[in-house]
Amino acid sequence: MTADTGRIHFGGDYNPDHWPEEVWAEDIRLMKEAGVSMVTAGIFSWARVEPRPGAWDFGWFDRVMDNLGDAGIRVCLATMTASPPPWLSELHPEILPQTAEGVRKWPGSRQHYCPSSPVYREHAVRLVEQLAIRYADHPALDTWHIGNEYGCSNPVCHCDVSAADFRRWLRERYGTVGGLNTAWATTFWSQRYDTFEQILPPRTTPTHPNPAQVLDYARFSDDALLQCYLAEKEVLRRVTPGLPITTNHMPHHKPVDPYAWAPHEDVQSLDFYQEPFDSETHLEAGAAFDVTRSAGAGRPWMLMEQAPSAVNWRARNSPKPAGKMRLWSWQAVAQGADAVLYFQWRQSLGGAEKFHSAMVPHGGTGTRVFREVCELGRELGSVPQLAGTRPAPQVALVIDWNSWWALEQSSHPSSALSQKETLLRHYKPLFEAGVPCDVVPPDRDLTAYKLVVVPNLYLMSEATGAALTAYVRGGGHLLVSYFTGISDECDRVHPGGYPAPLREVLGLRVEEFWPLAEGQRLALRGALDEGPGDEFGGGDLWSEAIDLEGAAAVAEFDDGELAGRPAVTRHAYGDGVAWYAGTRLDAMTTRALMDRVREDADAAPVVDGLPEGVQATVREGAGGRFLFLLNHGEVAARIVLPAPGRDLLGDPAEEITSLTLPARGVAVVRH
Amino acid sequence: MTADTGRIHFGGDYNPDHWPEEVWAEDIRLMKEAGVSMVTAGIFSWARVEPRPGAWDFGWFDRVMDNLGDAGIRVCLATMTASPPPWLSELHPEILPQTAEGVRKWPGSRQHYCPSSPVYREHAVRLVEQLAIRYADHPALDTWHIGNEYGCSNPVCHCDVSAADFRRWLRERYGTVGGLNTAWATTFWSQRYDTFEQILPPRTTPTHPNPAQVLDYARFSDDALLQCYLAEKEVLRRVTPGLPITTNHMPHHKPVDPYAWAPHEDVQSLDFYQEPFDSETHLEAGAAFDVTRSAGAGRPWMLMEQAPSAVNWRARNSPKPAGKMRLWSWQAVAQGADAVLYFQWRQSLGGAEKFHSAMVPHGGTGTRVFREVCELGRELGSVPQLAGTRPAPQVALVIDWNSWWALEQSSHPSSALSQKETLLRHYKPLFEAGVPCDVVPPDRDLTAYKLVVVPNLYLMSEATGAALTAYVRGGGHLLVSYFTGISDECDRVHPGGYPAPLREVLGLRVEEFWPLAEGQRLALRGALDEGPGDEFGGGDLWSEAIDLEGAAAVAEFDDGELAGRPAVTRHAYGDGVAWYAGTRLDAMTTRALMDRVREDADAAPVVDGLPEGVQATVREGAGGRFLFLLNHGEVAARIVLPAPGRDLLGDPAEEITSLTLPARGVAVVRH
Amino acid sequence: MTADTGRIHFGGDYNPDHWPEEVWAEDIRLMKEAGVSMVTAGIFSWARVEPRPGAWDFGWFDRVMDNLGDAGIRVCLATMTASPPPWLSELHPEILPQTAEGVRKWPGSRQHYCPSSPVYREHAVRLVEQLAIRYADHPALDTWHIGNEYGCSNPVCHCDVSAADFRRWLRERYGTVGGLNTAWATTFWSQRYDTFEQILPPRTTPTHPNPAQVLDYARFSDDALLQCYLAEKEVLRRVTPGLPITTNHMPHHKPVDPYAWAPHEDVQSLDFYQEPFDSETHLEAGAAFDVTRSAGAGRPWMLMEQAPSAVNWRARNSPKPAGKMRLWSWQAVAQGADAVLYFQWRQSLGGAEKFHSAMVPHGGTGTRVFREVCELGRELGSVPQLAGTRPAPQVALVIDWNSWWALEQSSHPSSALSQKETLLRHYKPLFEAGVPCDVVPPDRDLTAYKLVVVPNLYLMSEATGAALTAYVRGGGHLLVSYFTGISDECDRVHPGGYPAPLREVLGLRVEEFWPLAEGQRLALRGALDEGPGDEFGGGDLWSEAIDLEGAAAVAEFDDGELAGRPAVTRHAYGDGVAWYAGTRLDAMTTRALMDRVREDADAAPVVDGLPEGVQATVREGAGGRFLFLLNHGEVAARIVLPAPGRDLLGDPAEEITSLTLPARGVAVVRH
Repeated sequence: MTADTGRIHFGGDYNPDHWPEEVWAEDIRLMKEAGVSMVTAGIFSWARVEPRPGAWDFGWFDRVMDNLGDAGIRVCLATMTASPPPWLSELHPEILPQTAEGVRKWPGSRQHYCPSSPVYREHAVRLVEQLAIRYADHPALDTWHIGNEYGCSNPVCHCDVSAADFRRWLRERYGTVGGLNTAWATTFWSQRYDTFEQILPPRTTPTHPNPAQVLDYARFSDDALLQCYLAEKEVLRRVTPGLPITTNHMPHHKPVDPYAWAPHEDVQSLDFYQEPFDSETHLEAGAAFDVTRSAGAGRPWMLMEQAPSAVNWRARNSPKPAGKMRLWSWQAVAQGADAVLYFQWRQSLGGAEKFHSAMVPHGGTGTRVFREVCELGRELGSVPQLAGTRPAPQVALVIDWNSWWALEQSSHPSSALSQKETLLRHYKPLFEAGVPCDVVPPDRDLTAYKLVVVPNLYLMSEATGAALTAYVRGGGHLLVSYFTGISDECDRVHPGGYPAPLREVLGLRVEEFWPLAEGQRLALRGALDEGPGDEFGGGDLWSEAIDLEGAAAVAEFDDGELAGRPAVTRHAYGDGVAWYAGTRLDAMTTRALMDRVREDADAAPVVDGLPEGVQATVREGAGGRFLFLLNHGEVAARIVLPAPGRDLLGDPAEEITSLTLPARGVAVVRH
Repeated sequence: MTADTGRIHFGGDYNPDHWPEEVWAEDIRLMKEAGVSMVTAGIFSWARVEPRPGAWDFGWFDRVMDNLGDAGIRVCLATMTASPPPWLSELHPEILPQTAEGVRKWPGSRQHYCPSSPVYREHAVRLVEQLAIRYADHPALDTWHIGNEYGCSNPVCHCDVSAADFRRWLRERYGTVGGLNTAWATTFWSQRYDTFEQILPPRTTPTHPNPAQVLDYARFSDDALLQCYLAEKEVLRRVTPGLPITTNHMPHHKPVDPYAWAPHEDVQSLDFYQEPFDSETHLEAGAAFDVTRSAGAGRPWMLMEQAPSAVNWRARNSPKPAGKMRLWSWQAVAQGADAVLYFQWRQSLGGAEKFHSAMVPHGGTGTRVFREVCELGRELGSVPQLAGTRPAPQVALVIDWNSWWALEQSSHPSSALSQKETLLRHYKPLFEAGVPCDVVPPDRDLTAYKLVVVPNLYLMSEATGAALTAYVRGGGHLLVSYFTGISDECDRVHPGGYPAPLREVLGLRVEEFWPLAEGQRLALRGALDEGPGDEFGGGDLWSEAIDLEGAAAVAEFDDGELAGRPAVTRHAYGDGVAWYAGTRLDAMTTRALMDRVREDADAAPVVDGLPEGVQATVREGAGGRFLFLLNHGEVAARIVLPAPGRDLLGDPAEEITSLTLPARGVAVVRH
Repeated sequence: MTADTGRIHFGGDYNPDHWPEEVWAEDIRLMKEAGVSMVTAGIFSWARVEPRPGAWDFGWFDRVMDNLGDAGIRVCLATMTASPPPWLSELHPEILPQTAEGVRKWPGSRQHYCPSSPVYREHAVRLVEQLAIRYADHPALDTWHIGNEYGCSNPVCHCDVSAADFRRWLRERYGTVGGLNTAWATTFWSQRYDTFEQILPPRTTPTHPNPAQVLDYARFSDDALLQCYLAEKEVLRRVTPGLPITTNHMPHHKPVDPYAWAPHEDVQSLDFYQEPFDSETHLEAGAAFDVTRSAGAGRPWMLMEQAPSAVNWRARNSPKPAGKMRLWSWQAVAQGADAVLYFQWRQSLGGAEKFHSAMVPHGGTGTRVFREVCELGRELGSVPQLAGTRPAPQVALVIDWNSWWALEQSSHPSSALSQKETLLRHYKPLFEAGVPCDVVPPDRDLTAYKLVVVPNLYLMSEATGAALTAYVRGGGHLLVSYFTGISDECDRVHPGGYPAPLREVLGLRVEEFWPLAEGQRLALRGALDEGPGDEFGGGDLWSEAIDLEGAAAVAEFDDGELAGRPAVTRHAYGDGVAWYAGTRLDAMTTRALMDRVREDADAAPVVDGLPEGVQATVREGAGGRFLFLLNHGEVAARIVLPAPGRDLLGDPAEEITSLTLPARGVAVVRH
């Protein structure tokens, strides 16, 4: 998919090999009925196109491509390497991944390969070359889709092949074993290595492993997956230099850092499976969409997979209630997607995902799901002017996969901290207020943002500390929450008192961490302003003994050992302001604080006074400026527009100044 | 034990090798005092009779057999192969079973053998031949007891020996690898096999395994155990052609299909260990007893093991309160058993079951347990006329181990469905109403039953669908519950809309499955009739979007996304009626529905108006017709008899028309 | 540390190798400021002093020793063998321990060695010899500290090296395989061994393992660790014959029996990490301190490790609130410690324990923790007269690691019994009443005690039974609780009715065990005397059917199947009295019973009428008689002294007869 594709694409994973060829014609007919403009094909076809080593069988796939091409449907063509065929692990059992306990992962599901395996990579590259040459000039080919959900089922491997590759990676990173010993603090517990050859993956150990080893293994494992991707990309770039390349990431997927991969992708892709039983699933989706768009520097992106209705891999799997498929698909568009695809086109009769919903269900076309698919296909086909427009948020949240890997280790003050939870806790009050945001890594240029929020960024380089300090000094507004800026890139505590890289900008020192027991809650005292409802509530999970060094206490702890000491602070610094929260504030208090910080920073909502449950975003570009309104709640909501406009999904002839969104309703207002 | 043994046998597992020989004489004396008529001997004697390879030591066992024979006690003689001696796995470590993770199961407890192991089978057969020849003509020998609790501790093995045996089994089942690829839907996730040699057991995989592979591995693993049994049986049949052969099954034991084994057994045997802490343990026992009897086509069966009081292998083990051993033993007889045996005769001082109760406890004969044993022994010895009589139920529940194996997999709409739970939920209202039933596999001839109940039979062949349809058309009454008839023998969804094989007879289509969240409950609207207490309550766990195609809605969902759509339906079809429940009804509603369905079907209780907690069954035959009444409750209950009779356990001289059963009381009324 | 060291030592683990040498001078300066008199050094320095095999690098450590010696700080010198360097397991991977499942424990944390490994022991001994010779005459060297926390992370290993060592150990224990077969009751489940070579560790088994095998493996595993210790001790005794030797035990550490090790230690050492979130952590500490002192026959002991504030290895780690470090340190002294040390001196910046508090925190000297350290250092330096004095309790609790290993197995009447829980339940009412006690193994001479309490001592030799019987006959008072005296040293049930070895002294027989369900509670009837508040409450977890044979029922069960049968009994026997509790009494009832039993036995508190939360102990000796009062509660408490005295920590000039202890306060009154 190019940056300006001329429409919002609609379609799904297409696996015709599950069906006899006589079904294929009906597939094309129904795709047209449903408004499908793009499919992803071939993801798990390796065993079919190469049934034994080097024996290629592409004839059937030629017909699939031709059928799609004839119908004008664009193909996002998978490289077919997502899961190796049985013969490969039969010939080379050493490609099977191993757990930290030494348990081998066997064939029989998917992705049973060690990411470091040269055997796997070599066979994958050989296949990709065949594929690229064969379809380089096929008119239906639109985009390359390398692999599939990298690291979903094989995120990390502890086998001897991985061990050797890890040592290579460490040699490149540290040069000498002395450098590694310093970085890993191996003096502790007599872990000093004398040669690189002595180093192993963090396999099962008698007690807490070395945190820096664990952190580096997470980095290495992510990189091993990336090397698989890059090996295939090299072939594709060589054979089909002009075609865009992508791979579909999984949302909030700890093993794979989307920001590290982004420079190697022409377009970002994401799979997101909303959980209908979770009333806040749209918040989690929203954050994942913003990560994806931000990784791609704002470029239009692809929602590569979602379910038309139920999935089958959770413990209990609800269908999507009527209207939710539409609502959640529009949410992706509202946050910058130019393609809305599904897994999968036609529901399988056999295999491990036969109960995963599809655009054409087991029950056929006379079903609610197929009817909703067709309606949405029509709708998305009617708004080509949206394509290529982009959101432009004024607020950024900062997340760092390196910090995530370091934070959630077992030898910490509290093992109850969760990077994803804290991200969502800070994301929610912005989302609910109608304040779109980017979610960026710490090395991004932040100067354009009015407000930067840094939730629990445990690992922070001195450079990041300096950048945040400079940002505030230059007039930026910064909100930082607890246990941030503690350790360096090697997970060694920054000397100089917590949080050393931020002490100056925050105007305080943290003397001691004071994690709380499960269920323990500390009351707070102090108010943000005098209005009702702005009183501080409480904090849980974590607290800290804070000494002020320039900052002012906005709220204090009201009970416990820290009673009377600061809990939330504000520090006017340079031309900006830096806020700090030393505990996990409850949801209402987080919202109150965020509103106050936002007002200070002049970071306004796209719609004022947004009713509960309604999301508001803006996309703009050559095609115009569009306000998206989505009602995630279960009651209708009335919204006064910031300016008159026309609802593209309603009656585009009528100019309106307000509108009523039914439950699960969507409007796209062009100003 | 033959079909007509002339008495209800009483006794237990006899392990004299645990004791010095001077205790043996006391054993015989106490057995007589307790009324013991049969013992099971030699179950774990392999290491004693063959202390090293081929060195036989049967002398001590000759004396055991002679002692029993002299006392007129019948011997159910175990083949001693239940657990191999340490020398066998020392010589052949490859016989040790392995888990899916590759963890070997070591000696030190019992049953540490791979069921596919030719080494194990060869040594077992050699031992059985010695044993059969030696005791073929011993007067005490009554019945052969092959192995013991097959698959209790080694139900499935994933080692390389098993893998090779699995491939042999698959070759025999599918003929060609192409046939297997179709059956297993291996196109999915690039799993296509090119040769049988590539196939492995479902060992640990990166994610959800192939469901058909898992299903076939369950079938294969059951068959591997059966082959062990058959290898021994072949020897016994050859050496002692006239003697009955059995093996003791475990209740509701998912790995072993009792219906598949039944054709190879002369008499059915069951071990059942009631859980005194569970107030519904008698319901679970009842269902297991009915499975056992039904597997044997109604023949008298043996309760081979139960505990005289406490067991020792649960987390917390209650003794059986006074009277419960008697009550629960009589329950087996009431449901068709002609033998009531225990594990074990004399309580061990050492080993892993030293705290398992025995007929002669650690405390000796001056104990409550021994007193209750003697009383029951006397009582069972006094009713020879019961022997050989049989129950003759009018209702059948259908269960299928194949469906069980397929149902409880992880990639389903809901992983919370349980075959055993749904069986008991439908069994309970029949049991409590005093309506005895058979529990049969789907390929049984059902025409003789007035009512057939099919709870959640997920996997169903087209033949079964046709048979159930014909059954109703011919006048039968059928009650089917949710998620039934979905997949075929290879666990592929039947095309044609759910549940394709039953759509005609049920008069409906299921458009979508709608599993419910944990704790979620949907109210129902509609009534079965106008009486109080018959209002529908609610459903949980599961719901379905049902379209009527001839059936009438008896109840509808009253809230949620399916509000207003049918929840329970009734379809007059041919000369019969087919009912369907699209949700899991709560206990009261299930009872109300079952009562209504039963009345429709004219399937009457053996006693009308049975008080709560009282079980009623009938056995009849040459010896007469006997009504069994058992009070499982904790308060006395008054019962009006359907006809005058005499209580064999009370004053047989007095003819009564009603009686009061004390708590835990039993009556056997001869009409 | 010798028995009379002239002061209460104060200090901590010193790891200067974590820091550049320029920090070392500051270390010495701050140690003096903090009143440090002793440090433990070198614990994890193996990889630093022997960076490759045989390449010794002690120069840096010479300077550490000299610095300390120059400052007059005594060194408890570790043998540096706690954790082997990476090169050792690289050269000899067979030293890596294995779990019962066969999972290898890899390097990367600590203690990754099989305790039976001759390779590990040989390399350890070689290092110790170097160390002993080098520092034999160093003036700072005070005490040898062998290894560290033996068995903390590698308590048991199941590898082939361990298996061979186990067979050697069994040969020595049983002589013949016939003897072992009898001891292990291997007739059960066909486990009879024909040769020792067939025996394996209790690795993963198909079901419950042989209990005697499990018990012996616990004994063997403890002994394997002890052999590591003894191998090093042999070198030290030879090279430095006059120096005291210790090793630091972990509290209530099931794998290591402190009583079995005690004969080989010159001074006892303990690590204890209070859990600030647990309001009864001081009770657990108290019991551990009493075990430690009792193991050393009352000698002054060392609290080798505790945390200055938070630890980092629990799920959530609270700092110690203000004053708690002082309170809990004084508690060790009150219970006989002459050294109060911490892990560690200076908080690490890297590694797995960087968030473990230290005497010099990350925040430096301007912190609450460092201030409290300095205050306590001063205080402990001011009371030299306490050194060498000892407690002299009148009450003993009996615990036996052998019984612990046997009790908590899976094949028992209830798996919910816990040796530690029952110890603490009986310890608490004595602690709270101000009655100090010893905690001793069953083979101790008990005659000097006024009262002996035996909680749930499941495994009991006949000799112990006879000794307890003789103790009561001779005038002793004995309180025994449920499920005691059941099995012999080989975990075989004592024949003769439960509890055979104690039936005579207790005057009763237990007919049946009656474990209770989770949450089940039985009411009791009967009173200990007529005062209010002394009514019996209830029992849970366990009950027993007791027949009186001379004893009198003090309380009976008031509901359940045992209603009306004795629950608590009293038996006047010889010149003494034996009490028995057949259920787990609730906390208030346990206290009431213990008070009554204690009064009977004339075992008085050291202070009468102790307020809630206050601990009272006495130490006496050449230096005088000292009453310790510690307020573990959160409110001030007034205490009337048993005799006038002077508070060493208050104004020693003033003679007082009562005092008010603030929350978390401490007083040491010299009479």
